[in-house]
Amino acid sequence: MHKPYELWYWPGIQGRGEFVRLALEDAGAPYVDVARTPGGMPAMMRMLRGEGVKGPYPFAPPFLKDGPLVIAQTANILAYLGPRLNLVPRDEARRAAALQIQLTIADLVAEAHDTHHPIASSQYYEDQKAAAKKRSAVFLKERIPKFLGWLERILERNGTHHLLGRSASYVDLSAFQILSGLQYAFPRAMARTGRRIPRLLALRDRVAKRGKLAAYLASDRRLPFNEEGIFRHYAELDVPA
Amino acid sequence: MHKPYELWYWPGIQGRGEFVRLALEDAGAPYVDVARTPGGMPAMMRMLRGEGVKGPYPFAPPFLKDGPLVIAQTANILAYLGPRLNLVPRDEARRAAALQIQLTIADLVAEAHDTHHPIASSQYYEDQKAAAKKRSAVFLKERIPKFLGWLERILERNGTHHLLGRSASYVDLSAFQILSGLQYAFPRAMARTGRRIPRLLALRDRVAKRGKLAAYLASDRRLPFNEEGIFRHYAELDVPA
Repeated sequence: MHKPYELWYWPGIQGRGEFVRLALEDAGAPYVDVARTPGGMPAMMRMLRGEGVKGPYPFAPPFLKDGPLVIAQTANILAYLGPRLNLVPRDEARRAAALQIQLTIADLVAEAHDTHHPIASSQYYEDQKAAAKKRSAVFLKERIPKFLGWLERILERNGTHHLLGRSASYVDLSAFQILSGLQYAFPRAMARTGRRIPRLLALRDRVAKRGKLAAYLASDRRLPFNEEGIFRHYAELDVPA
Repeated sequence: MHKPYELWYWPGIQGRGEFVRLALEDAGAPYVDVARTPGGMPAMMRMLRGEGVKGPYPFAPPFLKDGPLVIAQTANILAYLGPRLNLVPRDEARRAAALQIQLTIADLVAEAHDTHHPIASSQYYEDQKAAAKKRSAVFLKERIPKFLGWLERILERNGTHHLLGRSASYVDLSAFQILSGLQYAFPRAMARTGRRIPRLLALRDRVAKRGKLAAYLASDRRLPFNEEGIFRHYAELDVPA
């Protein structure tokens, strides 16, 4: 039997760790969410200084430990786990296609974060609110439609219920997560955008009903979205043009 | 013989395409820089609408065409080319380590871009200069030291002349590129930071002297940095704390 995977991520938020968590939960893979266990946080801080890590240590969470191997960067972790969890097609071309989609989702996630922190992650939202309003307006008007419109087209062109191939892959789970996050953060804007992405919304609903994933989403392991994470709801930023 | 690779990228800037170009040039791989050829730009715009692309089409350049396969996202392209160009170790663990480093470099590149466009890529720099000054100050004070300090440590811990393993890989070439770009954009700040990253500066110098790469850098295929690209020199943003 495979030793449980170790997922290392900040304990109080969904954040980027959630993309990895969804894959592990959907596959029913045994894993430990280390920073949520006693002593986990100091251990994570040591790993982030490189202690006990062979090879390049993580620049930031999330990272995955699989035996001696430590792998960082969300999309990289998913590319590694995909074949092991049966959550990506096997051939190289479609594994590259999956990583391409995941990296584009990662770009969207980074932009979603910067709507509330356009100047500095290290400073309070309140101290960059003016710039946040400007950046959010552009994000809602230009970027969300562009990113989600692209995903909708990918789904349409694929001609199945999935973004890639004929069965669920980690990119479907990640699409569920960004839609959930954007709907939490920007309910008004997403109500409008929703009309243009019917396939994507249907995909989100199907993913939410997958057996193990539905159980996870109903469990207390699924943290609620909050204003410490990437997707934050500030009503003053949710102003569709 | 392998059909020439096709690199597709905006013709007037180094941008993200340069990371792919450096790998192809260093390996002496035959390739066509399609958008720089007559008719290349309209052809690229068609590909960006998905025409003639099987599977997920690119959200944005750069993308690589290898026979029928179209692959987008810089780090994904390099992960694909790495083994083919002999620019990454063969084993899965170190290929994942390479992708991890490349994705962290990609995060730095995105942040470097946002120093001059913190609000919107679609708007003029002049219209977001106030926010750009704030974001740049944080970037120079907090982010550059953190990213480059991490790379310096990776290099030091690896104990060779390379970031990964015992020979040059695509991440060494990418490290050369970000150092060159940051030195172009922020000469004053980098003169200070340089004292803390001696190994990284030595790596940059060694990469610049590699036979095929040196020839490339001296050719007119290597575009100069300019104020249309990712790394832009605006003296008012190069203000170290």
